[in-house]
Amino acid sequence: MGLIVQKFGGTSVGSVEKILNVSNRVIEEKQRGNDVVVVVSAMGKSTDSLVALAREMAKQPSQREMDMLLTTGEQVTISLLTMALQEKGYHAVSFTGWQAGIQTESIYGNARITHIETTKLKKHLKEGKIVVVAGFQGITDEGEITTLGRGGSDTTAVALAAALRANKCDIYTDVPGVFTTDPRYVNTARKLDGISYDEMLELANLGAGVLHPRAVEFAKNYEVTLEVRSSTELTAGTLIEEESPMEQNLIVRGIAFEDQMTRVTVCGLSSGLTTLSTIFTTLANENINVDIIIQSVTNTSETSISFSVKTECCSRTVKVLEKYKDVLNYKQIETENCLAKVSIVGSGMISNPGVAAKMFAVLADNNIQVKMVSTSEIKVSTVIHENDMVKAVEALHDAFELSKITVESK
Amino acid sequence: MGLIVQKFGGTSVGSVEKILNVSNRVIEEKQRGNDVVVVVSAMGKSTDSLVALAREMAKQPSQREMDMLLTTGEQVTISLLTMALQEKGYHAVSFTGWQAGIQTESIYGNARITHIETTKLKKHLKEGKIVVVAGFQGITDEGEITTLGRGGSDTTAVALAAALRANKCDIYTDVPGVFTTDPRYVNTARKLDGISYDEMLELANLGAGVLHPRAVEFAKNYEVTLEVRSSTELTAGTLIEEESPMEQNLIVRGIAFEDQMTRVTVCGLSSGLTTLSTIFTTLANENINVDIIIQSVTNTSETSISFSVKTECCSRTVKVLEKYKDVLNYKQIETENCLAKVSIVGSGMISNPGVAAKMFAVLADNNIQVKMVSTSEIKVSTVIHENDMVKAVEALHDAFELSKITVESK
Repeated sequence: MGLIVQKFGGTSVGSVEKILNVSNRVIEEKQRGNDVVVVVSAMGKSTDSLVALAREMAKQPSQREMDMLLTTGEQVTISLLTMALQEKGYHAVSFTGWQAGIQTESIYGNARITHIETTKLKKHLKEGKIVVVAGFQGITDEGEITTLGRGGSDTTAVALAAALRANKCDIYTDVPGVFTTDPRYVNTARKLDGISYDEMLELANLGAGVLHPRAVEFAKNYEVTLEVRSSTELTAGTLIEEESPMEQNLIVRGIAFEDQMTRVTVCGLSSGLTTLSTIFTTLANENINVDIIIQSVTNTSETSISFSVKTECCSRTVKVLEKYKDVLNYKQIETENCLAKVSIVGSGMISNPGVAAKMFAVLADNNIQVKMVSTSEIKVSTVIHENDMVKAVEALHDAFELSKITVESK
Repeated sequence: MGLIVQKFGGTSVGSVEKILNVSNRVIEEKQRGNDVVVVVSAMGKSTDSLVALAREMAKQPSQREMDMLLTTGEQVTISLLTMALQEKGYHAVSFTGWQAGIQTESIYGNARITHIETTKLKKHLKEGKIVVVAGFQGITDEGEITTLGRGGSDTTAVALAAALRANKCDIYTDVPGVFTTDPRYVNTARKLDGISYDEMLELANLGAGVLHPRAVEFAKNYEVTLEVRSSTELTAGTLIEEESPMEQNLIVRGIAFEDQMTRVTVCGLSSGLTTLSTIFTTLANENINVDIIIQSVTNTSETSISFSVKTECCSRTVKVLEKYKDVLNYKQIETENCLAKVSIVGSGMISNPGVAAKMFAVLADNNIQVKMVSTSEIKVSTVIHENDMVKAVEALHDAFELSKITVESK
């Protein structure tokens, strides 16, 4: 007997049939004797249709009105799911973000949750009801509707689990869990039974895509045990918690990768103290997300800075740099497209020197040239040519023996 | 300089183009120097699609969840219209029913407005903004979302006009105003410049359809001047206010009609004191709406009661009566289908005896048999055969000279 928060994303509630399927997953949990809070996203492509409508009204709709518009999506899903649960004889009740007491900052489109007022939800849970909450949305102190930005429903679920001191937060998705690497590319990819918050954070940030980094961070801070699992298959998923004792001997836990990267190099900068901050403040002010950054000092008076961006941002990045050429005071810009980032992640790395060296050796053995490198305590990222990406991932997956199950599965 | 509340119904906001058209009507009013509050319904058929979705989830979805679902419809419209207004350079802001302070009873699907907390709206109006409010919806004291039932957006508009002490409430619709009778049937039908609340109430109740009776009642109680006008044509509509001095000499103001009526007669009832109340309480409990009621005592111990219902309710009505035959203690039931109701309405009738007599004479002259009659201070309704309906309306429209303009148009 406990409290479980379940989250179902847009693809899991994309049609009437899928919502009926979700209602079964909810009922199974309820029948196990648990209290259940369900967080749902908008139905499949409904957000896209709303965005398309908005674009017909205005070139750049105000973010406040976009939030007003988009939050209707989850409101539709919560009512439909609740109807389905009621039709099957269960007491259920739906709440929008504001009704569920999800308070946020006064920022439209990308607000953070500041507080959850749980009195109402607790009352309904106590009455034995299944509580269905709209993900992705909240309310400011002034009564304005806000959205939480990308991965918002994950964040709603984790935040509710933290506020209600739930035993677990289950993130249902269209894959059976977190894999050692993307199974669509590497057929020996293996589902992980467990993974730590930090490892998941690195994987999430590196584009593994199953879970939003913000939600993982929230879960880590509030020690919410997460499970990423399939909304259609009745199998155990991947547990994400502080320690992952069952696989703790694994040095490398997973491999993340991402294509369509571009390297931008700003050459001939004066190597002053403020050069780095000036260049990246300028880019941040223009909302350009920079990934890996490398600075190489070639001689005492000059320096080059390389960084990677998504290829779609490349031309905008170059434009911004050219606009501020006088301020930044550089000689020229070089760009290289068709790159990919491949990263190995694992908390065992900290105590195992030579992991990065082994990675470089594997890549070299496969004739793959490394163009950029970036490391953290639990990950090593390399930037290579896009055409080498899958070959690199397969070789690393083999070399670090990720397809082997080293411990008993639960 | 004043405050105008504008209301646009579902057909007026049924597409992107129509919402853009509405934004022009709003801007014209703003440019005249007025403060503007706009109330909108859900886009065209969007409510129907949501209802269809609900029916796929449950045979009889709970009314609370239906309200949760349906209120998303207006929320979509308010955000889209506000985007359109902002795109054209106007300061505008949208509010859902609960944000606009529209408090209602704790009844789902058909709540009445109890109070409007106007502080927020007044603040935004004072800042010069166009305020766009979702019609049809409100919030209970417990923070539950409710809807106002049929004609709810009309009611929202009138209630806001009353609470904000607006100078006028303009109800924009797909017809140019209130007509002496339905112009689709009678080509001499004429748009009225003005009409009183009571006359409009009778016409609204009699199926004229342009304005919901509840909204008219609200307007009468709070002395809100209404104008029913076209959302596409730039012409004056019909003013609805306490007195209609410009046409006050007209005895009959309009003719309403409605087909698909059925007469049900319950014969051989014992003529006790409680007979009437028993029979109609029974029908009301089963949600059967009865229109005209006639009781005729044939001898001292027995009585017959006739009443009219919509034909679609006929078989259900008969079933209910048969179910309670023992309690009601009648001999038999007779029904007559294919009937129509034709009513003349006008506040001048009170002081003009003989209006009903003239109506009957006109019908008799046209060989139209009257099957039922019902009168109020400002209307006379007759039930006749469906096939005679249009002929009756045309003859009455002529006889009471409704196509003549008796006063100068404004």
